[in-house]
Amino acid sequence: MSLNKDFPLLKNDRILKVARGEKPDKLPVWVMRQAGRYLPEFQQYRKQHSFFEICQNPEYACEVTLMPLRRFELDAAIIFSDILVIPQALGMKVEMHAGVGPVLPTPLTVDQIETLTVNCAVKSLEYVGRAINLTRHKLEGKVPLFGFSGAPWTLMGYMIEGGGSKTYSQAKKWLYAFPSQSHALLKILTEVIIDYLVMQIEYGAQIVQVFDSNAEYLNKDLYSKFCLPYLKKISEDVRRKLKEKNIDPVPMVLFAKGGWYCLEEQADLGYEVLGIDWTVEPKFARNLLKDKKVTLQGNLDPTALYSPGLELKNSVEKMLEEFGSERYIVNLGHGIYPDGPIESVKILVDTVHNFNI
Amino acid sequence: MSLNKDFPLLKNDRILKVARGEKPDKLPVWVMRQAGRYLPEFQQYRKQHSFFEICQNPEYACEVTLMPLRRFELDAAIIFSDILVIPQALGMKVEMHAGVGPVLPTPLTVDQIETLTVNCAVKSLEYVGRAINLTRHKLEGKVPLFGFSGAPWTLMGYMIEGGGSKTYSQAKKWLYAFPSQSHALLKILTEVIIDYLVMQIEYGAQIVQVFDSNAEYLNKDLYSKFCLPYLKKISEDVRRKLKEKNIDPVPMVLFAKGGWYCLEEQADLGYEVLGIDWTVEPKFARNLLKDKKVTLQGNLDPTALYSPGLELKNSVEKMLEEFGSERYIVNLGHGIYPDGPIESVKILVDTVHNFNI
Repeated sequence: MSLNKDFPLLKNDRILKVARGEKPDKLPVWVMRQAGRYLPEFQQYRKQHSFFEICQNPEYACEVTLMPLRRFELDAAIIFSDILVIPQALGMKVEMHAGVGPVLPTPLTVDQIETLTVNCAVKSLEYVGRAINLTRHKLEGKVPLFGFSGAPWTLMGYMIEGGGSKTYSQAKKWLYAFPSQSHALLKILTEVIIDYLVMQIEYGAQIVQVFDSNAEYLNKDLYSKFCLPYLKKISEDVRRKLKEKNIDPVPMVLFAKGGWYCLEEQADLGYEVLGIDWTVEPKFARNLLKDKKVTLQGNLDPTALYSPGLELKNSVEKMLEEFGSERYIVNLGHGIYPDGPIESVKILVDTVHNFNI
Repeated sequence: MSLNKDFPLLKNDRILKVARGEKPDKLPVWVMRQAGRYLPEFQQYRKQHSFFEICQNPEYACEVTLMPLRRFELDAAIIFSDILVIPQALGMKVEMHAGVGPVLPTPLTVDQIETLTVNCAVKSLEYVGRAINLTRHKLEGKVPLFGFSGAPWTLMGYMIEGGGSKTYSQAKKWLYAFPSQSHALLKILTEVIIDYLVMQIEYGAQIVQVFDSNAEYLNKDLYSKFCLPYLKKISEDVRRKLKEKNIDPVPMVLFAKGGWYCLEEQADLGYEVLGIDWTVEPKFARNLLKDKKVTLQGNLDPTALYSPGLELKNSVEKMLEEFGSERYIVNLGHGIYPDGPIESVKILVDTVHNFNI
């Protein structure tokens, strides 16, 4: 399969403008996990293809990525994939269990770090690049395409716990009891993430997001030791490597869910956009970051989508007023849940686009 | 079984003093879930008795409550029980599944609120009072005895989800889609909690804690609507009812885990002590509450107990210095995990008691 980098002209650059601090015509809006189980056409598709089969087949991943764009006037697409493709590429088995989520049947132990297949990891993830490239063409310039990766700590959490966890106490145990091994693992993950993001951008991603979904289990002390330095290295090295390859830089988004306790420090890591969850009030974030040049993204509670239509509209308008229309990308504060009502996504998008800025 | 309220003289009142804002000789320390699975003698006991059998039998509950006091110089005991005894008393089935946690096999639906057996609920919980009364005697005045209850929102969460949840999205759906039914349920729970706490104090509890373990899933807006008014009613009505019964008031602790976003508002609810988790830095809390008369309780990360001894000692000392020794009760920021090392609990307690205040 040859790689065509002669992409269609981008027609809607709202989200890129806002990420760079410029003023758009309307506020941009997209939804984390917008290509997911809340869409009946996705559920139908999943009956024929397994989760990772869709991730690994560029045609399938492209088709699923485009699904929400056909329904809603979203301002971005995000490639269908999963943060756990990196542990997979490092040689770990990852299964998707219905109703449970991801399961890694053989969790990583402290003495197994050496066994991770680091060298060929990014090469083996080329299928994500191919999916991005295909989707970028199929989008016909309608909206920008997001690439993404899990953050080092979040991936480490899944790898050690063997899946999701209510406390991540086993992964956190490493941070306290095995700090040098923790740093060794985080360093490996950081290197892979850097090359993985560069590859995604090289293949056509116009903006990338780093998901630190498990930030909420740490605190400022742990996050400063085990997360901030690696997140900074990612933003710096991605830009440096792009420059070396003569590729234009793209905006980078960091979403550290539950990371309110070090939001200020996140603003100094070199990401143009910081995602925040619904526990963070807009004025808290704006006040804390008033001297920083960052765009905020978020933060509607995903369960607010269960509200009756008029109340949802009011909640969204209140949120837009509280954030203000400068440097603001509208989104949920977490991925949409599998039973999120489709009509509510339409109300969210319409309310945002009808809002005078 | 007759009820003896002629209790032994209390020898260690550090925790009660600090809750009232008085200066103790040493900082008081206790550990959430201190009578639990990390103790081999508890695990041994559980081989002979089921979880709820221990809760329901005053002799068993007393024995388990005293276990950690025999090992560590803790400054409080907390009656062995579970927050889910209230849903049980309201007629719901609650099972404890090994490695999973509590399971309510028939979750509450919106049309079933009427079926909850409200009238006899507190009467059916008298076994907790009996366990408290027995333990208060068996403690021989060594340390004060905590009673406790789940908070309305936290109990509502378990009742609707049918157990623990990573998002509590079904329970939160009620808040957005069925607000009047939510208030009806929260009102029922509030009334039961009030009488339940009064009963515990009547039977001998010397301090009580309200656990709002699921605060972290909400935000300021939801917490203001669906939690704060009920928590305030609980503190007010417990005191009023105690007065009507000519019973001395006891200090009340509120621990809203993950409730950093409304910590200031929590200080106005009438609780002498506020618990905080490890994501909240001591200086953040002290600064926010500098004009409020509240004692803080917390907030060592439970996974810090996995640190090597010297590092744990340093972490604890750093925490004590950051909180300062006024109005401070030392604890973890959440319950101790089942694999929490026993020797670390000893280091925690010794470090606190050796600290010059």
